[in-house]
Amino acid sequence: MGDHPTFAGPRTFLQMPATLPDGSPPEVTVVGIPFDLGTTNRAGARFGPSAIRDASLMLVDGDHPEMGIDPSRALKAVDAGDLSIVNGYLEETLDLIEKQVEGIDNHLVTMGGDHTVTLPILRAQAKRHGKGISLVHFDAHVDTWKDNFGAPIGHGTPFHYASDEGLIDPKRSVQIGIRSPTDRDIMSYTTDELGFTVISAEQVHLDGVMKVIETIQETVGDNIAYLTFDIDGIDPSQAPGTGTPEVGGLFTWQALAILKRLGGINWIGMDMVEVAPAYDHAQITAFAAATFMWTYMCLLAQKNGEAG
Amino acid sequence: MGDHPTFAGPRTFLQMPATLPDGSPPEVTVVGIPFDLGTTNRAGARFGPSAIRDASLMLVDGDHPEMGIDPSRALKAVDAGDLSIVNGYLEETLDLIEKQVEGIDNHLVTMGGDHTVTLPILRAQAKRHGKGISLVHFDAHVDTWKDNFGAPIGHGTPFHYASDEGLIDPKRSVQIGIRSPTDRDIMSYTTDELGFTVISAEQVHLDGVMKVIETIQETVGDNIAYLTFDIDGIDPSQAPGTGTPEVGGLFTWQALAILKRLGGINWIGMDMVEVAPAYDHAQITAFAAATFMWTYMCLLAQKNGEAG
Amino acid sequence: MGDHPTFAGPRTFLQMPATLPDGSPPEVTVVGIPFDLGTTNRAGARFGPSAIRDASLMLVDGDHPEMGIDPSRALKAVDAGDLSIVNGYLEETLDLIEKQVEGIDNHLVTMGGDHTVTLPILRAQAKRHGKGISLVHFDAHVDTWKDNFGAPIGHGTPFHYASDEGLIDPKRSVQIGIRSPTDRDIMSYTTDELGFTVISAEQVHLDGVMKVIETIQETVGDNIAYLTFDIDGIDPSQAPGTGTPEVGGLFTWQALAILKRLGGINWIGMDMVEVAPAYDHAQITAFAAATFMWTYMCLLAQKNGEAG
Amino acid sequence: MGDHPTFAGPRTFLQMPATLPDGSPPEVTVVGIPFDLGTTNRAGARFGPSAIRDASLMLVDGDHPEMGIDPSRALKAVDAGDLSIVNGYLEETLDLIEKQVEGIDNHLVTMGGDHTVTLPILRAQAKRHGKGISLVHFDAHVDTWKDNFGAPIGHGTPFHYASDEGLIDPKRSVQIGIRSPTDRDIMSYTTDELGFTVISAEQVHLDGVMKVIETIQETVGDNIAYLTFDIDGIDPSQAPGTGTPEVGGLFTWQALAILKRLGGINWIGMDMVEVAPAYDHAQITAFAAATFMWTYMCLLAQKNGEAG
Amino acid sequence: MGDHPTFAGPRTFLQMPATLPDGSPPEVTVVGIPFDLGTTNRAGARFGPSAIRDASLMLVDGDHPEMGIDPSRALKAVDAGDLSIVNGYLEETLDLIEKQVEGIDNHLVTMGGDHTVTLPILRAQAKRHGKGISLVHFDAHVDTWKDNFGAPIGHGTPFHYASDEGLIDPKRSVQIGIRSPTDRDIMSYTTDELGFTVISAEQVHLDGVMKVIETIQETVGDNIAYLTFDIDGIDPSQAPGTGTPEVGGLFTWQALAILKRLGGINWIGMDMVEVAPAYDHAQITAFAAATFMWTYMCLLAQKNGEAG
Amino acid sequence: MGDHPTFAGPRTFLQMPATLPDGSPPEVTVVGIPFDLGTTNRAGARFGPSAIRDASLMLVDGDHPEMGIDPSRALKAVDAGDLSIVNGYLEETLDLIEKQVEGIDNHLVTMGGDHTVTLPILRAQAKRHGKGISLVHFDAHVDTWKDNFGAPIGHGTPFHYASDEGLIDPKRSVQIGIRSPTDRDIMSYTTDELGFTVISAEQVHLDGVMKVIETIQETVGDNIAYLTFDIDGIDPSQAPGTGTPEVGGLFTWQALAILKRLGGINWIGMDMVEVAPAYDHAQITAFAAATFMWTYMCLLAQKNGEAG
Repeated sequence: MGDHPTFAGPRTFLQMPATLPDGSPPEVTVVGIPFDLGTTNRAGARFGPSAIRDASLMLVDGDHPEMGIDPSRALKAVDAGDLSIVNGYLEETLDLIEKQVEGIDNHLVTMGGDHTVTLPILRAQAKRHGKGISLVHFDAHVDTWKDNFGAPIGHGTPFHYASDEGLIDPKRSVQIGIRSPTDRDIMSYTTDELGFTVISAEQVHLDGVMKVIETIQETVGDNIAYLTFDIDGIDPSQAPGTGTPEVGGLFTWQALAILKRLGGINWIGMDMVEVAPAYDHAQITAFAAATFMWTYMCLLAQKNGEAG
Repeated sequence: MGDHPTFAGPRTFLQMPATLPDGSPPEVTVVGIPFDLGTTNRAGARFGPSAIRDASLMLVDGDHPEMGIDPSRALKAVDAGDLSIVNGYLEETLDLIEKQVEGIDNHLVTMGGDHTVTLPILRAQAKRHGKGISLVHFDAHVDTWKDNFGAPIGHGTPFHYASDEGLIDPKRSVQIGIRSPTDRDIMSYTTDELGFTVISAEQVHLDGVMKVIETIQETVGDNIAYLTFDIDGIDPSQAPGTGTPEVGGLFTWQALAILKRLGGINWIGMDMVEVAPAYDHAQITAFAAATFMWTYMCLLAQKNGEAG
Repeated sequence: MGDHPTFAGPRTFLQMPATLPDGSPPEVTVVGIPFDLGTTNRAGARFGPSAIRDASLMLVDGDHPEMGIDPSRALKAVDAGDLSIVNGYLEETLDLIEKQVEGIDNHLVTMGGDHTVTLPILRAQAKRHGKGISLVHFDAHVDTWKDNFGAPIGHGTPFHYASDEGLIDPKRSVQIGIRSPTDRDIMSYTTDELGFTVISAEQVHLDGVMKVIETIQETVGDNIAYLTFDIDGIDPSQAPGTGTPEVGGLFTWQALAILKRLGGINWIGMDMVEVAPAYDHAQITAFAAATFMWTYMCLLAQKNGEAG
Repeated sequence: MGDHPTFAGPRTFLQMPATLPDGSPPEVTVVGIPFDLGTTNRAGARFGPSAIRDASLMLVDGDHPEMGIDPSRALKAVDAGDLSIVNGYLEETLDLIEKQVEGIDNHLVTMGGDHTVTLPILRAQAKRHGKGISLVHFDAHVDTWKDNFGAPIGHGTPFHYASDEGLIDPKRSVQIGIRSPTDRDIMSYTTDELGFTVISAEQVHLDGVMKVIETIQETVGDNIAYLTFDIDGIDPSQAPGTGTPEVGGLFTWQALAILKRLGGINWIGMDMVEVAPAYDHAQITAFAAATFMWTYMCLLAQKNGEAG
Repeated sequence: MGDHPTFAGPRTFLQMPATLPDGSPPEVTVVGIPFDLGTTNRAGARFGPSAIRDASLMLVDGDHPEMGIDPSRALKAVDAGDLSIVNGYLEETLDLIEKQVEGIDNHLVTMGGDHTVTLPILRAQAKRHGKGISLVHFDAHVDTWKDNFGAPIGHGTPFHYASDEGLIDPKRSVQIGIRSPTDRDIMSYTTDELGFTVISAEQVHLDGVMKVIETIQETVGDNIAYLTFDIDGIDPSQAPGTGTPEVGGLFTWQALAILKRLGGINWIGMDMVEVAPAYDHAQITAFAAATFMWTYMCLLAQKNGEAG
Repeated sequence: MGDHPTFAGPRTFLQMPATLPDGSPPEVTVVGIPFDLGTTNRAGARFGPSAIRDASLMLVDGDHPEMGIDPSRALKAVDAGDLSIVNGYLEETLDLIEKQVEGIDNHLVTMGGDHTVTLPILRAQAKRHGKGISLVHFDAHVDTWKDNFGAPIGHGTPFHYASDEGLIDPKRSVQIGIRSPTDRDIMSYTTDELGFTVISAEQVHLDGVMKVIETIQETVGDNIAYLTFDIDGIDPSQAPGTGTPEVGGLFTWQALAILKRLGGINWIGMDMVEVAPAYDHAQITAFAAATFMWTYMCLLAQKNGEAG
């Protein structure tokens, strides 16, 4: 065991420093985006980054038990703190997020915030890596709505705009865990028109995780890929701390079993969104979110040649 | 998306009106029964109807993602409010419930209240549709006890009386999710004497949902059938907001996967009972209950010829 | 007692109808504003109206024990539901609120929502009643900041703008319960430059409620007056369900003792803001908010000649 | 300090035994009544006795700091467990309570249960001690309603029946903390017709506890007196764990300051009612209830000549 | 049903007496150990015994629905209360526990307390039954660390010492549910050096419970075996009330399905540890813990020839 | 307002840095001690420092409204993080704390941890400032017990040892808020033998804060003084998040009114102990604790000549 227990010490993600001690540039940057103006039901994802950081302390000081990797040791990684936002102003904040993300020139892992933040992140990622990114998208919702209860932008619209702007390539993208009420028009727009591969939560339960992994790998292929993980993809019993929960969701073991087998994907970034701690209980949602991020970082470390 | 977010507007079930705008008779009536005098452990199901109504707002304005139906648009349905009760008086309330249910001459969907309320509902349903109704019964408990800790009636006794009075036909009825401590006498009375088909929660987990669906369909056949859904059939992790939880229960995805495939059953009514919001967390129990009711209404709409 | 218990029946404010049964125009209109984009710390006031309505059921069916008035019987009052908002868009929503309030031509009582909503309400009230309104303002915060963490408008800025636009007359206005950290510049702007009479929470505790009542009456005089009640004026122990609590606050008994003695004021409207139910416990914040509104309506009924 | 910490050992009230070790008859018997069928809003007082017993462990092993008495050492007292009830049946339970209380021939201290239980206790006490008992009654509600939302008996009716049957003498009885909505008819029935001395919560706050003590002593005089303590007399911030809270209530320090100075009263029994743990937080309501009972037992010990 | 509801009566485990009424020696003794000084993250397991006892009331008065056994009737069993501890002193308490356990000469079932307590229990069990005990160990953690954040002993170290002292035979022991971050050195020490059979939570999910049962039976064989059940083996959604939760865990149905099929094992004792009620919700963790203990006692009763 | 909202940015106390940007030595050092092995009832104060830091974000960026001081701007102050502890080992940790405190040569403000930590702090302070320190001690408990349920040291014993070792001068020390059960022997030891001035919570309520201030000033005089603030001095309604709450406590407004008037005292250090977030609600306990520390730092800044 390490030298101090999990309830002590700095409360950054995995207790990573803000800058590397030797002044070298990091390989991975973790940032928080304390923002929830795009939520349509329960707000509170502004406190998501703090909650995930606190939960991550349970993951400090130990290797992934099966992958044999401790990502905070295996990677040159920093927790660079929170991005600035424009309090109360949605579109202005999205612009500001985009600008800040553009300034980060290494592998970015983001803690939201609501799902609206993925749009400016993808805009910045597309500038850096090129358009047509594959999306691996865990969520209860397709998030391809064309409006947000009459307003143009919200947490249900990012992938409509990202598709529309060509940032992502829906035909090489997969959505996993989908199960919310959705107008058949939107569903058909998502699958037929845009071309997303949609795997419902029920399909994951009935078909098993190995089949899902295969579908993801086949759909994404060797395209550059971005992981966007809306915590409400997970069942409300395991992730109550979120704004728009839907019953019948994925179990954390399924998401972890899928994620840890996606090392072959050509990842360019990740976000973990919609953690709303006011609705969490005993930190279980935040633990789940932190564990998904930690597992993703293990994948990155594997790439770096870290033995498992 | 609709024209106002889920945290605004009227708080009836699916925001349905109390009467149809055009004055026509409804096809489906939803009512609440704020009653919990029959509970044997934790009270509080009197607040079940309010909690389910609030949770149902998340289901307004969208089709079932796989069935392609929005039941509040597909059906002429109303939320007629709460039935009257006699505060503090169990048997008097049961009589009053029966009388009120008799006055509703369309398809009735009830939000309990504790499970005691199913007895007067079945009495009224049997008057209207005839005796020998098939019960499709999700529950952790068989609810065929012959007494309630010494008193004659409680939430553990409805199906003893319903069998005894011939309201239901146990031989064509199925109980799913059973797992509570139960004297072997009561268990043998239930299965051997009365003839219920009992599917334990463990069996659902081990055999899979497809097998359960088959058993239900075979047992019920083309008899008229009533769905009584005690939320404690679901695991306490997904439905903590109830009075007599038992661990090892069904998952919501299983119940939903079963339910949505029971469109062929000849349904005459449904109740959703034992939601006790004081023990819920982040509304997850209420979301589950509302989603089961919503799915049941999709089945009714399917019957009406609504395309999916 | 009435004919059904407090856990049954419609969940509007005091179970008041949306329109009067006889079609006559109401004397008092209650509306909700499910909005919280202006909050600077914990969001969630969007659910304030629902929570206050539910809590108000405890006040149905009974006279104020000392004033001898039941305002829902003594006044022709309606709960007209929730105002529309533009989800995610702050300034657009404020404009929309203003327009909707302009359309209500009787005595308006509003359930927020965060404190930002008072600005458009005052704009509409000033159009109808004239500028230079006296504010009677319960709050932990002066809410006269000139910006919202760099952005122009938020829940800390309404009375800067309301003063600036002449909507209110700070010199005939009182703030009660003030105690948050506040830059000395803002404090001196509030008291010296604008001329607000500021009564700190400590002063209420040390000087007693009778002295506070006297100061309010002297400051407001016979001017038209608007009551804006931020629930965080109350101590966090009695009103935890709010976004920016400050310890050392007023007790509900003090606020009630003050309020019920302000019948002589020339009231033109009221709002009850910043109730954030996700942080409430056992509904106590919502009960407090509902009781303040109920007491205010008793004052209105007294004016109408209702004997106490 | 004692020999084991407060989180260990038996969980009876003050860890008192069920019978005295030497087989001698007790001076004081504490019993629980796990009953809440009479509640009109939130149920759950059935768990009150358990919660109070657990909270009382903090009071084991120590003298009252000002009275210098440890009642569990100073008195021969037992916790005789819970009375039997008829689950689900209100009137039958009241009869059964009465019969059981009649069988206890020493000083009885009861943990409710809702306030309905005081009626059968008073019936039994009047048989033993004579009618015309003085009531010292802490409560937010007068509890003299003549019906319970249409039904004859509930937790709002005990003192109507107790007055009607002559069990208590309202003219020598005091109600402290009253503040709920109450029809003026009921209020006038209570004070003018029956003759109760009613001290509102606001009066306690404005006049101070010494004045209240004086009024109680003057009103009760040397009559036999029964203490009935509804925990909702206390403010919801200090006693959220109850069914019908009303804001603006007494503080625990006030109730304790009053109670500990009432040693001169001729007490014949006490009940502590309406503790509903499902709505409590961090046991604070239960701690308050246990402390009131503990203080009452100190009064009894003082009578016994125990030095302070 | 029995003669009183689950919310009444004594609150010992399964309402068992402290000594048998006929004075005969018990076959099974249940004790609590209110101790949590060994925890490395969230404390609070000191309240575990109380919480489990309360939860067990739901299991009183009924047979296991599939095994047909009510263990409190089938076995001569007592709840002997809580062991003494030395408040604040870890090693002194372990010694005291060992001494007390040595004094119990029948089948011991323990409610912890944190996992540190298993070490002194195993020391006492090895004195009585001999060394080289097989461990059947449900847990998220291997608990074979050689230190506790620098200190020698804590809740992560018991099986290092138990192996080192020869109390257990790791080569005939199984760990089920393992999934926490663990340095590869510790993992290889556990499996390769000590020889534990480790079944990860993911393996249980992917391989199914029947395979797990087989592995346990093969590994343990006919050796004497001790069941140590750390509640954090279960997923945090079903057991939030614990100190070091890890997502992706076992479901209660899986643990129950495994446990009830292990009747052939030669059991010598059990402990149920790490239940921390402050983090529980609606008692679900405590219900799980009580149900595991109840099921274990059914296994013991089966051995005794009790028919199912 | 500042440049980012309270839900963003670093989570140190008042967002103070770990070292001053210009490398100069600080005037004030804040540290956390994540330790709770000395608690006798509910554990969890190990998370106190994190909770207080989070709550302090609400106090960043603003002057004390009456004192006109922002202590994080007025003082050269740092948050130096958490002291090391020996996990699970009480006496070893106390020694380690003492050693670490000795290494801090400026004004120390500590966030506990349970009250045991005050003993090693006082030992270090006495080495630096001399023995015979005056204690200004807010608490529900005298904390002069000579043992901890049989063990030598715990959170009820620090001032027995501190007196015994001459670290503090009880005759020039004051305890405020005392009200827990306390054996008359201990009470008389505290007041008569040691000579503490004890002001009960009731006295504060009855006599008023001005009288308390006077008593403190007279008792302490110009002696060096240490402020030890046990959050359970505050009433459980305002500070539920603590281990050994006692009803009838001080209100935060009283403690603040007292504290802010103690600028004339010759302060040498402060600790804020016994904040146990697992029992807190909506952060209200942590807000109180942070506000007391913030106010104390305002006193220090006043000394420094900072104008108000």
